[in-house]
Amino acid sequence: MSSNELEALIALLSKLPGLGPRSARRAVLHLIKKRDKIMVPLIQSLQYAADNILTCNLCGNADTIDPCSLCQDGRRDQGVICVVEEVADLWAIERAHAHQGLYHILGGTLSALDGIGPDDLHIDRLIDRIEHGNIREIILATNATVAGQTTAHYLTDRLQGLNLKISRLAYGVPMGGELDYLDEGTLTTALAARRPF
Amino acid sequence: MSSNELEALIALLSKLPGLGPRSARRAVLHLIKKRDKIMVPLIQSLQYAADNILTCNLCGNADTIDPCSLCQDGRRDQGVICVVEEVADLWAIERAHAHQGLYHILGGTLSALDGIGPDDLHIDRLIDRIEHGNIREIILATNATVAGQTTAHYLTDRLQGLNLKISRLAYGVPMGGELDYLDEGTLTTALAARRPF
Repeated sequence: MSSNELEALIALLSKLPGLGPRSARRAVLHLIKKRDKIMVPLIQSLQYAADNILTCNLCGNADTIDPCSLCQDGRRDQGVICVVEEVADLWAIERAHAHQGLYHILGGTLSALDGIGPDDLHIDRLIDRIEHGNIREIILATNATVAGQTTAHYLTDRLQGLNLKISRLAYGVPMGGELDYLDEGTLTTALAARRPF
Repeated sequence: MSSNELEALIALLSKLPGLGPRSARRAVLHLIKKRDKIMVPLIQSLQYAADNILTCNLCGNADTIDPCSLCQDGRRDQGVICVVEEVADLWAIERAHAHQGLYHILGGTLSALDGIGPDDLHIDRLIDRIEHGNIREIILATNATVAGQTTAHYLTDRLQGLNLKISRLAYGVPMGGELDYLDEGTLTTALAARRPF
């Protein structure tokens, strides 16, 4: 077998999401082969990230500055906050250029099973931002899962009386989606939420 | 979008086999979340590997010592060399504990299309090992692909007259394999190479 040091590296890499032991092994062999072109730059890049990436104290985004570049960007609409579960969701919406306002990252969803209650999410911080900012709309962009929807419902309750417009993402047939391949839940939702053409 | 530094890190990670841009992003977010538990140990482990992993001058294996621990292991049969294409193949055979002798890594296969000729593989080094060692058997364990088989045939020619037993892996139905799901090439080979029960 390979040396203990390589085994340790493979074990660490295989802890990353999307990498099992087999792909971690392939990745390590690739890294050894491309030591100067990939491995060394990767180490430097990881070291830089480990040293410099902060969590934005306003929205929870990951960036090298705090508040993050999104929160500091004066061109963005400071009156609208899009509430998402994780940083990955923020990145996904940013990639789509679908939102010009601010964000707020909850850090997960309510889950009785995993013992995650409202205090474990960044809800108080969101209410604080609303109360001290000039926020006119909250867009709930949690995932369309049971946990995501439960969290959205809870947030709607908590945000009542704050003089806000509260909206959520539209649910329905995804663009490019073929009806034949869609699940029944999506079809039911899409029919129930049909709109005039 | 995330900061430029994170984008650079994602770009580097997505160069690894098995990781696309999407999974690289997920991996980076995971690393940021688990900075102390995964990210910092991973950096140290990568740095150690970058500084210490050598290529064995005898067999081509990757290890922290040269000759590698397999070549230095006196308990292994020094008279049998198993010839494989890549380090990954050596590791696969070692995981199976299927071979007690030595190895030789060719570093690829002959490929007219990619301009890889005999001089680009570690064939001379293999012949050198055979001539200066007490080798009695060469096991050709190249992949069962056209390129792998071409290389094995070429090697058989080159090794003629060296007073060696030359063998190759058996081809046939893989253990656990269901005939219904096997390709015709494998079935034809397995029937042609049938053995007394």
